[in-house]
Amino acid sequence: MADNLVLHEDVRSGNCYKISLVAALLGLPLEHVQYDILRGETRTPEFLSQINGNGRIPVLQVGDRFLPESNAACWFLAERSALIPADPFDRADMLRWMFFEQHSHEPNIATLRFWLHYIGEANLSEQQRAQIMVKRIAGEDALAVMDRHLDRREWFVGDQVTLADIVLFSYTHIAEAGGFPLEDHPQVCAWLKRVMQLPGFVTMG
Amino acid sequence: MADNLVLHEDVRSGNCYKISLVAALLGLPLEHVQYDILRGETRTPEFLSQINGNGRIPVLQVGDRFLPESNAACWFLAERSALIPADPFDRADMLRWMFFEQHSHEPNIATLRFWLHYIGEANLSEQQRAQIMVKRIAGEDALAVMDRHLDRREWFVGDQVTLADIVLFSYTHIAEAGGFPLEDHPQVCAWLKRVMQLPGFVTMG
Repeated sequence: MADNLVLHEDVRSGNCYKISLVAALLGLPLEHVQYDILRGETRTPEFLSQINGNGRIPVLQVGDRFLPESNAACWFLAERSALIPADPFDRADMLRWMFFEQHSHEPNIATLRFWLHYIGEANLSEQQRAQIMVKRIAGEDALAVMDRHLDRREWFVGDQVTLADIVLFSYTHIAEAGGFPLEDHPQVCAWLKRVMQLPGFVTMG
Repeated sequence: MADNLVLHEDVRSGNCYKISLVAALLGLPLEHVQYDILRGETRTPEFLSQINGNGRIPVLQVGDRFLPESNAACWFLAERSALIPADPFDRADMLRWMFFEQHSHEPNIATLRFWLHYIGEANLSEQQRAQIMVKRIAGEDALAVMDRHLDRREWFVGDQVTLADIVLFSYTHIAEAGGFPLEDHPQVCAWLKRVMQLPGFVTMG
């Protein structure tokens, strides 16, 4: 990987942390550029035209090219490493959990953490407030699916850690800041500890 | 690909159609098992224990293994085909658009189509009704991001069709059933036509 790697990020974002954690586990050097999403720093005309037209972080810069979407960036860093299974079914199954994370986990668990922990319930719009219960139920469902899946296995796919574990770890380990009690999900708690014991593991922030 | 391929699906779902479209473009034989999601046929104890603990379709059955998440199934079918770019950055960039589809496009455009076209606005819950405007704005944003991206390119990634185009095509070409006028997005309309002209293209349903 000859190109310089730069992570455009806000350190409070679990989507950004995922990428730093993959880089740390693989020993890849990563430069960091910080943005404050609460101050709209990813919605400036410059950011939208040069870095991501979607106005979101993280974006992984690879040389002079820009790669949005946290899980795509994790994939790029981990190609040809043991974090991506060699078996075709297992590789697709890993992607299955990464899509689950972006569709059924992050929009509920990460969003409630952002709203309740950073914006504050008193400052939410009426539309945001109307979504809290829906996101609470859907987030609990996602954690329950994970807990059942981990009932008789140590890792999400096959018998060793993959990107599926890393991307799901990120917002799960801070889910309590969104009001999701993890003690209800003992298999998830045991799995979180396994991830934290991986060689090269780094904490968030 | 020696294992028998069976798609557990509801033909009204764009997430299911994607997989059939990928199989058709690649000439792969696919058996189909139908479920009626409106009658709860994917929430039975049997479905939850044997096919998908998440209670969702599509699920691609590969021999005796089950693969949920539409975009993971598309990836599995397309491995080692020209629908996945050989270049590592382009491959990650294709996944970027596939994650965008599941995070920023499908939850808005597909959900409003399901609510307005199949359930009917009069039958929606108060919580669903409270989300319509949020999903309308986010879905329009997603289409605008796509339109800008297609401004000077024919396909989402590189210079030929990839899975990114196929998975985004699915719910975009039926977005008007969710109340999203496509005429506002001329580049998207031109790209939809290009997809429909691909050799082996099949229509939905």
